[in-house]
Amino acid sequence: MPELRKDPITGRWVIIATDRAKRPTDFIRDKVQIRGSGFCPFCYGNETKTPPEIQAYRPNGGSRNSPGWTLRVVPNKFPALGIEGSMNRQGEGCYDKMNGIGAHEVIIETPDHKSTLATMPVHDVEDVLWAYRDRIIDLKKDRRFKYILIFKNHGEAAGASLEHTHSQLIALPVVPKRVREEVDGSREHYNFKERCIFCDIIRQETEDEQKPRLIAENQDFVVLSPFAPRFPFEMWIVPKMHQCAFEESQKHEFEQLAPLLKEMLQRLDRVLDYPAYNYIIHTSPVAESTEDYYHWHLEIMPKLTKVAGFEWGTGFYINPTPPEESAKFLRGAAVPVAT
Amino acid sequence: MPELRKDPITGRWVIIATDRAKRPTDFIRDKVQIRGSGFCPFCYGNETKTPPEIQAYRPNGGSRNSPGWTLRVVPNKFPALGIEGSMNRQGEGCYDKMNGIGAHEVIIETPDHKSTLATMPVHDVEDVLWAYRDRIIDLKKDRRFKYILIFKNHGEAAGASLEHTHSQLIALPVVPKRVREEVDGSREHYNFKERCIFCDIIRQETEDEQKPRLIAENQDFVVLSPFAPRFPFEMWIVPKMHQCAFEESQKHEFEQLAPLLKEMLQRLDRVLDYPAYNYIIHTSPVAESTEDYYHWHLEIMPKLTKVAGFEWGTGFYINPTPPEESAKFLRGAAVPVAT
Repeated sequence: MPELRKDPITGRWVIIATDRAKRPTDFIRDKVQIRGSGFCPFCYGNETKTPPEIQAYRPNGGSRNSPGWTLRVVPNKFPALGIEGSMNRQGEGCYDKMNGIGAHEVIIETPDHKSTLATMPVHDVEDVLWAYRDRIIDLKKDRRFKYILIFKNHGEAAGASLEHTHSQLIALPVVPKRVREEVDGSREHYNFKERCIFCDIIRQETEDEQKPRLIAENQDFVVLSPFAPRFPFEMWIVPKMHQCAFEESQKHEFEQLAPLLKEMLQRLDRVLDYPAYNYIIHTSPVAESTEDYYHWHLEIMPKLTKVAGFEWGTGFYINPTPPEESAKFLRGAAVPVAT
Repeated sequence: MPELRKDPITGRWVIIATDRAKRPTDFIRDKVQIRGSGFCPFCYGNETKTPPEIQAYRPNGGSRNSPGWTLRVVPNKFPALGIEGSMNRQGEGCYDKMNGIGAHEVIIETPDHKSTLATMPVHDVEDVLWAYRDRIIDLKKDRRFKYILIFKNHGEAAGASLEHTHSQLIALPVVPKRVREEVDGSREHYNFKERCIFCDIIRQETEDEQKPRLIAENQDFVVLSPFAPRFPFEMWIVPKMHQCAFEESQKHEFEQLAPLLKEMLQRLDRVLDYPAYNYIIHTSPVAESTEDYYHWHLEIMPKLTKVAGFEWGTGFYINPTPPEESAKFLRGAAVPVAT
C-alpha cells in the first residue's frame, strides 16, 4: 500500500510509492561528465568574455578581470532580471506587473574546469560558502530586494548551460511563493507550539532509536532524507543551531558545512553514478523578522525522474523511493574521507 | 527590461524575459513521433494485458475486455494509489501520514495507435470528454475522495511512458496544494469584489481592443495565453459560462470544447513542430461549495524548456516568451478546419 505523507512545514502531501520502491540502479539517465571541449568563458584567460567581475578571491593578488583568482563572481551575461531602474509597480486592468528589477550573478567556484564541488579541496568549497555570504550581505543593502536566492544547477539535465562548476544568485523584489509558504508554515507551527518546526524535526530524527532518515551528522549539521520528499534521494542539510539566515552563520559553521556538503555530493555521485542535481539554499526573506520561527537549510535534489507537468501544475508529487531507502543507500556509500 | 507579472488567481510572480524573447524555432527538442513498434497493451487484441476495464464505449456492441471498443477506461497497471482500504490517518511524532488510498485510471482515447487528440475525428475527442465526465461522476460517489484530477502526458518528454494516446485520472483523499491555492485565491477575489476572477479575466481579454492574449474563441469557450504564464506557449481554455465543475458542463459545451481542443493541439503541433505537452483539467474539489467563485478550465503546457530544480523548489518561473508573442504565433498558425 502506497503511503501519503505530509510535509510538516508546508503541508504538502506526497505519495510515497512503497510498492514499487526504486533502487538507485532503477533510474536510467545520462551521467554528468565534464567534457572540457570547446571554449569556456569561466576558465583562466577568458575573464573578458564575462561581464566585469563583481568580486573575486585572489589570495596571491593580481588585477581584476585577469587570471590568478580562486573564485570569481560575475553578473550573468543573460540576466533574467535587470539591476538598474525602479520597480514601477502598476496595474493593467485586473493584472499587476512591475519592472523586472533584480540581480542575477554567477559564482564561478574554481578556475579548474575539471573540478566539481565533490572533487574540489574542502577549503575551496568553504570559499564558495563565504562567497555566497559576501554577496548576500552586499545585496541586502539594496532595499529593493526582498529575497536573495542561491542555487546550483549541476549537469545539463538539471538546467546547467555551462559545465564549468558554478552557482547562481538571484536577488528578487518579491518573495517567491514556495519560500512564502515555508516561512508561513514555520510561523504557524511556532504560533501553535512556540517551537521551531525544524528544531523539532532535528530532535525527532536524531533521537529516534532507529534514525531511519538520518544520513550524516557532524558537530554543527545534520543531513536528512526528509519525511515527505518530493524526489528520490532528496537531502536536506540543516544546521543544529537555530538560525533563520544562512549569511548569519558562525565561522565554525561554514567550516563544518564545507566538508559535509562535499561529502554528501560524493555520496550522491557514488550511489547514483554522477547524477545531475540542483541545490537551493532556503533562507529567510531579507526584510522580515523570522528569527524565532524560521531555520535556514540547504536542499539537494538529484534529477532522476521526469517531473510531469501535472506535478508542477498540481503540487502533487509521486516519489517512487521511500526516504528511509534513500537514506540507507546514502549512508552506506563508501566515499573518500574529505580532505 | 524584463517584466515581473503576477498571476491574479494564485498571486504567483513570474519573470517574463522580454529581452531575450524566444520564438518557436528557438526551442530545440525532440519531436513527438508515434513509432508503433513493439507490443502495445492499449491496442485491439491486447485487452487482457491491462487490468479489467472499468468502462468502455462500444457503439456496435461486443463483450467486455475484447476488441470493438472506441474508448476504454482501465485501472493503471502500476497505480500510484490503492483503491481498497481505509485511510488510517495517523501521526508519527511531528509527522502525519495515511494510507495511499485513491484511484488511478487510464483513459485509452482511441483504439488507433497512430492517432492523437490532434488528428482524431472531433466526435472521438468529444467522447474523451464524456469519458472524463462519466468517471468523475462515478468516483464522486466515493466519499473518501476529495479531489479528482484529470491530466494528459503527451510524449516521452512530458512523462508519457506509452505512446498510444491516453489520459489519466487520479482520485485523491486530499486536495493538492496548487489546487488549494487556486481555489483559495478565487475565493479571496470573490470576497473582495463579489465577482469571479476568471469571469473578470475573460471580460478583460475579450473586451480589450487589441486582444493581445486571445488565441481563439467559439460560442462557449475562449482560449488565452495567460497574463503571467509559467511556460512558453502555455494556453488556458476557459468556458464563458461561469461553472465551478468540469463534470457539470452542458452537452453543448462538450460539443464546443471538442473541436476547440483538437484545433488548439493542431496549432501547437504546427507552431512548435509536434511538441510534448501536458494538460490538466482544473476543476472544483469534490466536496466543497465553490459555485460562486471557482471556474473550471483546462491548462495546456507544452514541454519546451528544462525546468530547473530551483523553479519547483521556489515556485519562481522564468518564461522566455511573452504570452503576447505566444498568442500571436498560435493565432497565426494555419491549421486544417476541424472535422
